[in-house]
Amino acid sequence: MRNIKVEQLMQTPVEDQKVEIVERKGVGHPDSIADGLAEAVSRALCREYIKKCGTVLHHNTDETQIVAGKSHPEYGGGEVIKPIYTLLVGRATTEFDGEEFAADAIAIEAARQYIRENFANINLERDMIIDCRFGTGSSDLRDVFSRNKMPVANDTSFGIGHAPFSELESIAYNTERMLNTDLKKKIPGIGEDIKVMGLREQDDISLTIGCATIGRYVDDLDHYINIKEEVEDYVAGLAAEHTERNVNIYVNTADQIEKESVFLTVTGTSAEMGDDGSVGRGNRCNGLITPGRPMSMEATSGKNPINHIGKIYNLLATQVAQDISKTIPEVDEAYVRLLSQIGKPIDQPFIASVQIIPEEGARLDSILSEAEGITDDWLASADRVIEMLINGKINTF
Amino acid sequence: MRNIKVEQLMQTPVEDQKVEIVERKGVGHPDSIADGLAEAVSRALCREYIKKCGTVLHHNTDETQIVAGKSHPEYGGGEVIKPIYTLLVGRATTEFDGEEFAADAIAIEAARQYIRENFANINLERDMIIDCRFGTGSSDLRDVFSRNKMPVANDTSFGIGHAPFSELESIAYNTERMLNTDLKKKIPGIGEDIKVMGLREQDDISLTIGCATIGRYVDDLDHYINIKEEVEDYVAGLAAEHTERNVNIYVNTADQIEKESVFLTVTGTSAEMGDDGSVGRGNRCNGLITPGRPMSMEATSGKNPINHIGKIYNLLATQVAQDISKTIPEVDEAYVRLLSQIGKPIDQPFIASVQIIPEEGARLDSILSEAEGITDDWLASADRVIEMLINGKINTF
Amino acid sequence: MRNIKVEQLMQTPVEDQKVEIVERKGVGHPDSIADGLAEAVSRALCREYIKKCGTVLHHNTDETQIVAGKSHPEYGGGEVIKPIYTLLVGRATTEFDGEEFAADAIAIEAARQYIRENFANINLERDMIIDCRFGTGSSDLRDVFSRNKMPVANDTSFGIGHAPFSELESIAYNTERMLNTDLKKKIPGIGEDIKVMGLREQDDISLTIGCATIGRYVDDLDHYINIKEEVEDYVAGLAAEHTERNVNIYVNTADQIEKESVFLTVTGTSAEMGDDGSVGRGNRCNGLITPGRPMSMEATSGKNPINHIGKIYNLLATQVAQDISKTIPEVDEAYVRLLSQIGKPIDQPFIASVQIIPEEGARLDSILSEAEGITDDWLASADRVIEMLINGKINTF
Amino acid sequence: MRNIKVEQLMQTPVEDQKVEIVERKGVGHPDSIADGLAEAVSRALCREYIKKCGTVLHHNTDETQIVAGKSHPEYGGGEVIKPIYTLLVGRATTEFDGEEFAADAIAIEAARQYIRENFANINLERDMIIDCRFGTGSSDLRDVFSRNKMPVANDTSFGIGHAPFSELESIAYNTERMLNTDLKKKIPGIGEDIKVMGLREQDDISLTIGCATIGRYVDDLDHYINIKEEVEDYVAGLAAEHTERNVNIYVNTADQIEKESVFLTVTGTSAEMGDDGSVGRGNRCNGLITPGRPMSMEATSGKNPINHIGKIYNLLATQVAQDISKTIPEVDEAYVRLLSQIGKPIDQPFIASVQIIPEEGARLDSILSEAEGITDDWLASADRVIEMLINGKINTF
Repeated sequence: MRNIKVEQLMQTPVEDQKVEIVERKGVGHPDSIADGLAEAVSRALCREYIKKCGTVLHHNTDETQIVAGKSHPEYGGGEVIKPIYTLLVGRATTEFDGEEFAADAIAIEAARQYIRENFANINLERDMIIDCRFGTGSSDLRDVFSRNKMPVANDTSFGIGHAPFSELESIAYNTERMLNTDLKKKIPGIGEDIKVMGLREQDDISLTIGCATIGRYVDDLDHYINIKEEVEDYVAGLAAEHTERNVNIYVNTADQIEKESVFLTVTGTSAEMGDDGSVGRGNRCNGLITPGRPMSMEATSGKNPINHIGKIYNLLATQVAQDISKTIPEVDEAYVRLLSQIGKPIDQPFIASVQIIPEEGARLDSILSEAEGITDDWLASADRVIEMLINGKINTF
Repeated sequence: MRNIKVEQLMQTPVEDQKVEIVERKGVGHPDSIADGLAEAVSRALCREYIKKCGTVLHHNTDETQIVAGKSHPEYGGGEVIKPIYTLLVGRATTEFDGEEFAADAIAIEAARQYIRENFANINLERDMIIDCRFGTGSSDLRDVFSRNKMPVANDTSFGIGHAPFSELESIAYNTERMLNTDLKKKIPGIGEDIKVMGLREQDDISLTIGCATIGRYVDDLDHYINIKEEVEDYVAGLAAEHTERNVNIYVNTADQIEKESVFLTVTGTSAEMGDDGSVGRGNRCNGLITPGRPMSMEATSGKNPINHIGKIYNLLATQVAQDISKTIPEVDEAYVRLLSQIGKPIDQPFIASVQIIPEEGARLDSILSEAEGITDDWLASADRVIEMLINGKINTF
Repeated sequence: MRNIKVEQLMQTPVEDQKVEIVERKGVGHPDSIADGLAEAVSRALCREYIKKCGTVLHHNTDETQIVAGKSHPEYGGGEVIKPIYTLLVGRATTEFDGEEFAADAIAIEAARQYIRENFANINLERDMIIDCRFGTGSSDLRDVFSRNKMPVANDTSFGIGHAPFSELESIAYNTERMLNTDLKKKIPGIGEDIKVMGLREQDDISLTIGCATIGRYVDDLDHYINIKEEVEDYVAGLAAEHTERNVNIYVNTADQIEKESVFLTVTGTSAEMGDDGSVGRGNRCNGLITPGRPMSMEATSGKNPINHIGKIYNLLATQVAQDISKTIPEVDEAYVRLLSQIGKPIDQPFIASVQIIPEEGARLDSILSEAEGITDDWLASADRVIEMLINGKINTF
Repeated sequence: MRNIKVEQLMQTPVEDQKVEIVERKGVGHPDSIADGLAEAVSRALCREYIKKCGTVLHHNTDETQIVAGKSHPEYGGGEVIKPIYTLLVGRATTEFDGEEFAADAIAIEAARQYIRENFANINLERDMIIDCRFGTGSSDLRDVFSRNKMPVANDTSFGIGHAPFSELESIAYNTERMLNTDLKKKIPGIGEDIKVMGLREQDDISLTIGCATIGRYVDDLDHYINIKEEVEDYVAGLAAEHTERNVNIYVNTADQIEKESVFLTVTGTSAEMGDDGSVGRGNRCNGLITPGRPMSMEATSGKNPINHIGKIYNLLATQVAQDISKTIPEVDEAYVRLLSQIGKPIDQPFIASVQIIPEEGARLDSILSEAEGITDDWLASADRVIEMLINGKINTF
């Protein structure tokens, strides 16, 4: 029997609140780079552990630190003056059962590959240094890890999820995603460092977008201004697919056009010039920062997917909320909180708290019991999330 | 005219919700060590800038990374095997108006002094390495910084605050504070690394406490068990001052007494053995992690207190909420969100959103207008917060 | 008028001494890797300075530190467990006359390129980390540097050279060079880390050779033993071209064949497993360590080729000695020492001391005056050496 | 039977050569700081190993890298702007026979203590960062190390020594030693970074001395000039005790008095501003750099004193030469070279080559056989040198 508490939440639904704030840091934001590297390293280690001994061994690689470089951006080119310095921090099992694991080497390789695949304009030969200081972790924790078949929580921690996305959340999320994929195909001058800050005041939405541009694809100031306008137009169209509210779009508001001071970069990310980054300070595992919703502070990226309960419960809570929201049409909003206690099996949370805002007029009893069933199912097969993670089926930021 | 929106929040007050989760990471938690170092370095730089040129110059030192060491704890002693490695990251102005600033040297000195003052059992001669990789920041940002007298926001960001603390919040916060000060005087074996996880299910409160102990003050396993019992008793008494609810207390639940595997350290912090730490991943600026309340992801510690709007608005929002809560007795809960737009003066937020849950039967109109007045006052004198910060009158974690 | 002192040296010529010791560290020895990286970085900076402002600016990049990694060599493969960590240290001009120089980025790029060109089996994606901590040097030294057209010595230092090579010197030098080029073409299992220690006792020569092998090209222990034999045969043939003395060859004497403990590597260098390296601790600029000859301790690699007198004078002294030895057949041995005084033009040494051992029966007067002329000529055109250096025409180790 | 070859050396004695060059880098020269740290760390490890398991375990800590800082010296004060960064590199045994060794922590502590004891004006709270990247060495080498009671050579390497010191050698050595001890007591403004370059042209000696001064003890330019004069006078007096030759003394010749550009420091060493340092690039183990004498390139400091043959043989060769020179009055000069072969016991060199320049008219036979006896005795008790090293009775630079 699991300790699952489902209750109706008496609360103004987010769409009806007067003010809503949502933020998304794009894949090229320094904090997201740190997240992406941390998770890429963890996944590479998982693959190696599984290859060599059939199971994932203890590791946590969730403390990557990005130390900003210095650059000299120019229209048509520019160069990085001082490379971005990246320190991979964490711990990993390097010996187990007579087998040795090249944890540091694998980490470096995975990190470089991640950068190469996601940042076409970072030249790894000169723009970025990737360093590594791994430890070997605490033997007590390793003990917890192998105590029995069902993984047990490595900590007393919690995870949180909600569904569905509000209009503003959908817009913020998709704006960055589409700029960085769809529009980027057309306009290579768009950099990966895109930050979207969404504000809704009743029916007025403002999107403040910081969007790096890449010097080698931008001819001059006119071209730059032209790109900004294309971004604005594109986002306006995209937003209209999600909302009928009034949408105002502000791109690179810190520009001082008259001084020719604009958001131009060499590599596509502000990490090249003054902006450091850390794991766990950006998007939550649903891809957003949503100050109006419950959130966990836990860094999800880079944690081991087997017993790191902060990681697993955040991802699981999000899955549960999304499943409830999709399966039960009468649910307006679903909030899920899972709390562990260190040493307990991960399918037995200390508490699973589910809060539902039902549609007006919905039959509450059946909703609550259906939601409880969905929650119980997901907990019973908590390893599904673990598998999805290892196979790269879930994002962590 | 400031854009201040005050509204009634239709929501079950936290005390009436069925489930509440609150966490506090103590001063010796690796994430808190990172926060503390980052803020100590920033304050030292502020003092130097003010001393030499009358104003705070551009800096952000908010990316300290703690790389865990390795230790060999023992009853009656033990030793650190591999020092904790601490990398101070950030940027600071090193030259201004013909004056040179010893930013790196000041940072190292401030960091060492902070450790010395807060960690009696970290031997800086061998237990910890403090390294520093500072840059000099972006000249564009420096430009923003000095453009006019009234500081302007350096980013599009938001800050969030609420008041008052719930019972559980008060208990979680004070448990760590009192263990680390009052009880520690009596029991020196209590380490600074204390984590309190509070859960309330209706009227049942559980406090799961991870509390490091320090080998040199613990004679043997019996003594260790004895200390745990004293902690339990002390916390039970303390909790009773804040609540009439039923309180269960769990201390160091990961211990395996029969295997003599317990939470024993050399220095008082798990950073000595396997636990890394980062700035901005622990407590919010009110000292807590409160997943049931709106929160900002912004790291507050180490940011410059002049134009780093994420820092200023988080602290300011908390002050505003507390002031509203104290001044207007009919307010049950107050939530404050401040959103900036990059380049705008900090006393002119893009929006200041205040949400109030009034007492039943309260006169809403007067409450809302009074709250607006308080908010406006605080914004008008936004520099009060800056001054309080520089003078060390406000905590950031 | 230059202070040139030429004298006859009363001394048993090296070939007639009873005992002679000569050592050469191959290009893959950790100390030589450090030398090679330091010099490659300096040359890349020279090219950039010349490209951007027509002259070489102040820099010294002569303190590369190689921190050994950890590896798991195997026949037919193996892998690096922990990457070799390389820290490029030095200082370089990053701003001059309104121009910015990407010193750190150029250094990283040049270092990676050097490794790629010289170490076919170091996989830069995972086997080696290249980090950089450059400073910007002392303004006083920069002052010295630009004071007038003719470069002035940056220090009080000396350089030393001798010619011709003795038989043993020729053998030691060529053994490494030919193994690493000619024989390596035929046997790819030969690693770049080759150390030759030559000892001559009267007419008996012993060559003790440490020669790394590369796992992926070595099938098994028999193959390994076979390679060692081929190396022995090859060196025997090579030595016979240089001497008629009796030559004994010892390859990898630390092997313990019965325990299968042999000199097998993954990458071709022992830096992968336990052997650190530093600039300036290996070969002198003539390619050898010759304890029976005068030597300078000065690290030549990585020093700037314009005013770093320790570098210039070592290379120049070697050129002068070689020229004297080639031009004047009656010279058996020539030793050249050049001593600078800080602040003086490099063509005006504090003293140029030339010592000659003439053939028996040679006419001393004419030899001495001819040697003086040659020395004077080289000093007068000291910049020839500088040019040769920048164009990569002279080796430094 | 040991392979000892003693021969008469036909060579102009050094005092009779026309030109002689000798250099000594003082304890505060960046290269010497690196040497001193490396050796201090090794000795601390030796003590710990002996304390915990009765014998010295494998380690080599001979690759300390000093990365220069940045400073702002001023008369009466000044400050370090950017700390000197020191990276301790090497490897050490961290586990043996069930015992754990805090190698990194011990290294940091020993390094800090060494600085504190030798550099009164380096403030370790802000002027210097001491970092550490230790590995654990190759298991093969550890194997070699414990194979039998008598230590066996870890490498094929050689050591070299000579005696007695020439006049110039004595002067160069003692000038630095006495300035840094005797005169420093009287004039605290003298810094530890003193470099003495001695040149003798027949009977004219020039001493070029670079001598740092420490701002806080120097009132102004006049005071500085005054100190230089006192140094000159003092050295003149000291030289007169060792020679009757003509002595010219040049102190801080790079000064530009008219521009007030002088050798002023904050800490007493140029490592604070632009001068990096490495182990093994400065003085040989007899305290001097003597390009006219046979020298080994081997770094002595920081190597383990048990089986690191490069270290042991350099120190031993120096002891043997000094003993021969002292014991046999008819010996004018003695040169000793010891060559090892990897894997052989250290008391059995591959060859011990002793070269003697006898007094005119001396009876060669008895000299040679007496020298052979002394050499044999020292080799037989090679561990005496090891013990002297561990007990700090021999210097290494």
